[in-house]
Amino acid sequence: MKIALAQLNFFVGDFEGNLRKMLIAVATAKEQGADLVCFPELATCGYPPRDFLEFDDFICRAGHSIEKLAEAARGIAIAVGSPSRNPVIEGKDLYNSAYFLEEGKVKHVQHKALLPTYDVFDEYRYFEPARQFNVVEFKGKKIALSICEDLWNLGNENPLYTVVPLDEMMPQKPDLILNLSASPFSYEHAKNRIHVLRANVERYGIPLIYVNQMGSQTEIIFDGGSLVVSPNGHIFDEMPFFEEAVRTYDFDEILHNGRSVEQPKDKISLIHDALILGIRDYFSKLGFEQAILGLSGGLDSAVVAVLAAKAIGKDNVRCLLMPSQFSSDHSVNDARELAVNLGMQYDIVPIKPLYEAFMQALKPHFRGSPFGVAEENLQARIRGILVMALSNKFGNILLNTTNKSELAVGYGTLYGDMCGGLSVLADVYKTEVFELARFINKDGIIIPENIITKPPSAELRPNQKDSDSLPEYDILDQILYQYIEKRQGPNEIIAMGFDEKVVRRALRLVNINEFKRHQAAPVLRVSPKAFGVGRRMPIVGKYLS
Amino acid sequence: MKIALAQLNFFVGDFEGNLRKMLIAVATAKEQGADLVCFPELATCGYPPRDFLEFDDFICRAGHSIEKLAEAARGIAIAVGSPSRNPVIEGKDLYNSAYFLEEGKVKHVQHKALLPTYDVFDEYRYFEPARQFNVVEFKGKKIALSICEDLWNLGNENPLYTVVPLDEMMPQKPDLILNLSASPFSYEHAKNRIHVLRANVERYGIPLIYVNQMGSQTEIIFDGGSLVVSPNGHIFDEMPFFEEAVRTYDFDEILHNGRSVEQPKDKISLIHDALILGIRDYFSKLGFEQAILGLSGGLDSAVVAVLAAKAIGKDNVRCLLMPSQFSSDHSVNDARELAVNLGMQYDIVPIKPLYEAFMQALKPHFRGSPFGVAEENLQARIRGILVMALSNKFGNILLNTTNKSELAVGYGTLYGDMCGGLSVLADVYKTEVFELARFINKDGIIIPENIITKPPSAELRPNQKDSDSLPEYDILDQILYQYIEKRQGPNEIIAMGFDEKVVRRALRLVNINEFKRHQAAPVLRVSPKAFGVGRRMPIVGKYLS
Repeated sequence: MKIALAQLNFFVGDFEGNLRKMLIAVATAKEQGADLVCFPELATCGYPPRDFLEFDDFICRAGHSIEKLAEAARGIAIAVGSPSRNPVIEGKDLYNSAYFLEEGKVKHVQHKALLPTYDVFDEYRYFEPARQFNVVEFKGKKIALSICEDLWNLGNENPLYTVVPLDEMMPQKPDLILNLSASPFSYEHAKNRIHVLRANVERYGIPLIYVNQMGSQTEIIFDGGSLVVSPNGHIFDEMPFFEEAVRTYDFDEILHNGRSVEQPKDKISLIHDALILGIRDYFSKLGFEQAILGLSGGLDSAVVAVLAAKAIGKDNVRCLLMPSQFSSDHSVNDARELAVNLGMQYDIVPIKPLYEAFMQALKPHFRGSPFGVAEENLQARIRGILVMALSNKFGNILLNTTNKSELAVGYGTLYGDMCGGLSVLADVYKTEVFELARFINKDGIIIPENIITKPPSAELRPNQKDSDSLPEYDILDQILYQYIEKRQGPNEIIAMGFDEKVVRRALRLVNINEFKRHQAAPVLRVSPKAFGVGRRMPIVGKYLS
Repeated sequence: MKIALAQLNFFVGDFEGNLRKMLIAVATAKEQGADLVCFPELATCGYPPRDFLEFDDFICRAGHSIEKLAEAARGIAIAVGSPSRNPVIEGKDLYNSAYFLEEGKVKHVQHKALLPTYDVFDEYRYFEPARQFNVVEFKGKKIALSICEDLWNLGNENPLYTVVPLDEMMPQKPDLILNLSASPFSYEHAKNRIHVLRANVERYGIPLIYVNQMGSQTEIIFDGGSLVVSPNGHIFDEMPFFEEAVRTYDFDEILHNGRSVEQPKDKISLIHDALILGIRDYFSKLGFEQAILGLSGGLDSAVVAVLAAKAIGKDNVRCLLMPSQFSSDHSVNDARELAVNLGMQYDIVPIKPLYEAFMQALKPHFRGSPFGVAEENLQARIRGILVMALSNKFGNILLNTTNKSELAVGYGTLYGDMCGGLSVLADVYKTEVFELARFINKDGIIIPENIITKPPSAELRPNQKDSDSLPEYDILDQILYQYIEKRQGPNEIIAMGFDEKVVRRALRLVNINEFKRHQAAPVLRVSPKAFGVGRRMPIVGKYLS
């Protein structure tokens, strides 16, 4: 028996496009001699469909795709994920289902039992969990069909569920575990899933095939990296990251060949590639070609410019340099040098005349109060207006350049430098942005060295430095990581040896700036805990604040 | 037996404050002669605590509050909601629990079984459902203790759960159902909960006591309105809406008195009161006193100004009039008249000089292109900067005046009129804003008649009217209601008799403007389906778009 895995880049809600893609993959799999072709979780509608699932019409269209795929399942069987209706009145109206299609018909349907409802996942919002488990027979083999999370109650110390779906199937003596997935990328996910898949293979002693979605859906990136695991726990194959692919495997070879391959999983390299895919898919799926961004001469906007050039082409990225009276000469020069290195179009619009016009208009109302946050924010907001004006005029999307450290502590201006359609670096701590810059420069200078080595500054008042009002980033980022990614409280973090005052101040800043993040651009998620849909905090709360 | 209900305004995360409030209510209940005092769901930490629940420290502090309340439970018993730990490793780490405290000790704990995970609710994200159900005996009566949603699998056609918790308790022959709740307000909720509570009383034939949280938590408003239902289905008492209260009831009277009372539930009156509470709590809980808003001379900002004056006092609301070259004379006059009617401070800052300064700066980059959306948005954004500058300078919060119709179809400028810390009307359709204005004026003109009767206009280009680019609001709002509140698809809405082109265009506008709503201010929720946390749509999607 030969099994094809098709890790494809679906588009949420684009039933026609997704179906077309799958039918082409069915043809490719046939050419590769496959008996069965496997698609990811919820492939008909794309993952995550979110509240589109509440529309009857949406579910009908998914059903229509299944019919069309069943028709195509002649001479080859198809395993594919799709939402399906729960015929019982009690409980949620839908299941998250894996269909097994053969010779024009639905041969078998297995629903998902473990419904992730944490971080970015909301599956219990929509789906009823499976309570029945049956294998499907195909070409003399019994296949334990499962969906994504169904494998994930093993291999961790704190299982989230009281059921282990494959335990329920084992009395039927399956020969193979087939898992249809849509597992979001984070820089540690590729390692984790190998760990979890191996835990399953060790427990059941049969091979495991895992096919994952590829592509970015707003903030959530899927990396592909589909896996074939032999019964001895060796990785028989790991499909490419961040690329669509259709590959066919022989079941006997998986059992007996002994092959063991794994791709490198360097954190910064993975983040780099994920962000490029995230930008590319955001533009292509929204039907936009061109980006605009403000180049400050600082590190964050430099890294975003490089990633954008790699994602959509340097000719599609327009840069705006908007120096103020507080900008140092080197800022403009550094920004210009970067734009030249990248071969990008750039324009310079000094903001001083606009700043003065606003101060003139506001003078009677400011009542002679000294220069302060209002004046700092004013500069950032004038810049926001300027880039948005060009964005609106020429139909390009503003890329936001905020990093995770500053978004965490609220070191950014709402409606100013927080503007943008997509936030590229807001899940990358400042210290990681430095690493990204080094990675980008590893084969030759693209980002001018001065941009990397000079002390970070918002340049909104004379001689300002980030470290005037924030702890040094190498300390701050560690504290933020413990609080955000690891959900450690103040006492635990202080016990790790960090200064109590610094810790309490950092956590307080995170909590009181929730109102800013509520209005932030969507953040490309590359860590296990990103700001946005996966982190849900009260704006009005009185905890550590 | 006498039972006190304490519907209190908790503050999420403020363990000390919430505990203090409950201890005072315990004393009040004792004075009223109560044997038992009942507090709402998750009263120790406030509802909804969201991802604060993921912090061990947060759960510890809730546990500490329970200990303190147990100490106070001498001479009076206490029923109170709080998160508790699940001792079993498999499954979620927490329960949503109802504690019964008596004579210094925890006498009984009943966990919540039905965990709402839809709309604004995410309970399955945190909690394991109860699988054991036991009544608690007190003063010779058996009490079926339950939490909020546990009652809600009855009285509707499409039950969301496969379990009915009270069915499980009935073999133990309880004398009374006691339900600790945190039920979010919508204009139809007070009616719905009476329907559901009656369905329970009809099924079980015993009295039901329901105590609800009061107060607003960012976007979610809780109205109180706690209920005492006699076994014959009569409403023995309905506690006040939008007010804290402690009232004590005699169990025998509930059984035999025959009293039947209900408060009026007029939709617009409820919305009016809910919005005022929403504004008031947002300011008081964040520790702010003063608001600022832009008064355009249009309906929405006029209604927001009135509601703000009622919520935090006219002296705490500052208005800014920012006419452009496209503003009609009547706009400034109408706005000024309203400010005078309300006795509010107002300032006028014409934006023409600022607009011209920007056009001057942008001229080389706009390349002689004609006046368009970029120039319209520019005006809105200059206004946004001006009000934010005053907001930053004087530490007041900008109130956003967007209504639900325009937020739905994207008829607003991101970083312009969409700025603000809190969106007051964004869950109120334009046609409902008219009703609110009439309601406000019912005892005398506060909002000048001309503001209500003139055709709505953004005044961003000469002689512009909303109806130039949108369907008339009385049609548009009906279509939006069917799509947003009722989750009807295009075919269903067209079948109701609306013009196909208008329907498809409206739904498309809703879907392609998800990117704007993602960055909108938090919206005070007054309908069954508000934009924000309760409606989760993909930004990058291809469905009805």
